[in-house]
Amino acid sequence: MPLRNIKLTIEYNGTHYHGWQTQLPKLRTIQRTIEDKLKKILNEKIALIGSGRTDAGVHALAQIANFKTASSISLTKLQYALNSLLPPDIVIKKVEEVDLGFHSRFSAKSKVYRYIILNRSYPSAFLKDRVYFYPYPLDINLMRKAAILLKGKHDFRCFQLKDKIERDSIRTIKDIRIKKRGSFIYIEIEADGFLYGMARSIVGTLIEIGKGKAIDTKRLLKMKDRSLGGPTVPASGLYLVKIKY
Amino acid sequence: MPLRNIKLTIEYNGTHYHGWQTQLPKLRTIQRTIEDKLKKILNEKIALIGSGRTDAGVHALAQIANFKTASSISLTKLQYALNSLLPPDIVIKKVEEVDLGFHSRFSAKSKVYRYIILNRSYPSAFLKDRVYFYPYPLDINLMRKAAILLKGKHDFRCFQLKDKIERDSIRTIKDIRIKKRGSFIYIEIEADGFLYGMARSIVGTLIEIGKGKAIDTKRLLKMKDRSLGGPTVPASGLYLVKIKY
Repeated sequence: MPLRNIKLTIEYNGTHYHGWQTQLPKLRTIQRTIEDKLKKILNEKIALIGSGRTDAGVHALAQIANFKTASSISLTKLQYALNSLLPPDIVIKKVEEVDLGFHSRFSAKSKVYRYIILNRSYPSAFLKDRVYFYPYPLDINLMRKAAILLKGKHDFRCFQLKDKIERDSIRTIKDIRIKKRGSFIYIEIEADGFLYGMARSIVGTLIEIGKGKAIDTKRLLKMKDRSLGGPTVPASGLYLVKIKY
Repeated sequence: MPLRNIKLTIEYNGTHYHGWQTQLPKLRTIQRTIEDKLKKILNEKIALIGSGRTDAGVHALAQIANFKTASSISLTKLQYALNSLLPPDIVIKKVEEVDLGFHSRFSAKSKVYRYIILNRSYPSAFLKDRVYFYPYPLDINLMRKAAILLKGKHDFRCFQLKDKIERDSIRTIKDIRIKKRGSFIYIEIEADGFLYGMARSIVGTLIEIGKGKAIDTKRLLKMKDRSLGGPTVPASGLYLVKIKY
């Protein structure tokens, strides 16, 4: 059999996982869980390449991953077998055969993350670990004005978590939108890449601004100092929504 | 202090509970869990009256319950204290002081239940125990036609689970609606009361009809025989949506 390149679209509830991938052996990750099932189904060792990592507790509506295989299994059968074997918090939404040159990470042009805030006086009985419950008033307009200033190509060092410093911290935010639907606030960020903790640091800073704290996001970018922004919000409200190729 | 009558609007994820209420001691129920917290907050023994029972695993978006108390605690403080002490899968959405004559069960005019079916080839990573995943095609129009015949005042014995037979099985279905939104099918039933397992037996029968099985719901009502209908669907897809007074 010639080699085939298989692309998976994956939905997961990240609550009980140590993220998509981790160097630490023996920790439960999304990648390792899917690889194990692929090995069982295809009877060969599989290297699953994700579009990028998601942190512990972060969710995905459409993470993309690909792997190469010599198997001739049908795509429908593979999807069915995977969903039968995988735990219920990981679901394969789509299985496609793609060009051998396709690479989930290197071929990606941009990623979209969504952060969900439940903004009312009482929590939801269904959404613990799925949204960030924030019971105090937020001024959406102040948040929008501050968010727009982050658009474009900048050094985002000020939104990088200190414990994992990457060398090149220049990224381009292509779009950042804040929507309110009932008691829910959605903050959607599209960028060509995200530094470690960047989405959650931006959201934490925007929440401080929504509370009324005078933070100048333009100045923040220039100062390159994480301590001047707001706190990093919990991973539970964050969803990887889309990878654009 | 004169006696006050307090009405609670309660949302709960029923997955980890033996229903709203049960005669069996020591089992974890929604009612017992809330009563325990009320006792702690108000420092008096509380008898919490629900609008009716929900079975193990059934959810509620707005269950109604009331209790009498001599306490002068403010409603805002009581709501905040309850939500702080309750586990995250039970949330008090509203606390109101009502007329002393109000009784959650006896004053109820009708109840609305919603059943949610996820009808596509793959499940959802977020909705296990929250919807009924059904991957085979369903003909919504056949289901609608059969559902309409159930409207009105009938003896619903044929939709009553055998293990809990109530004497009077005459009920009035005021409305029954089937909606499709994307891959989700919502079956909403409003009735003046529900027999044990009635909503889930009706849904199970409608699913059989949607699959193409020729079941005459009019004849089913006349035959009064549970074995002629479809299976009882799992509790996990069922939500108590509204109590009308």
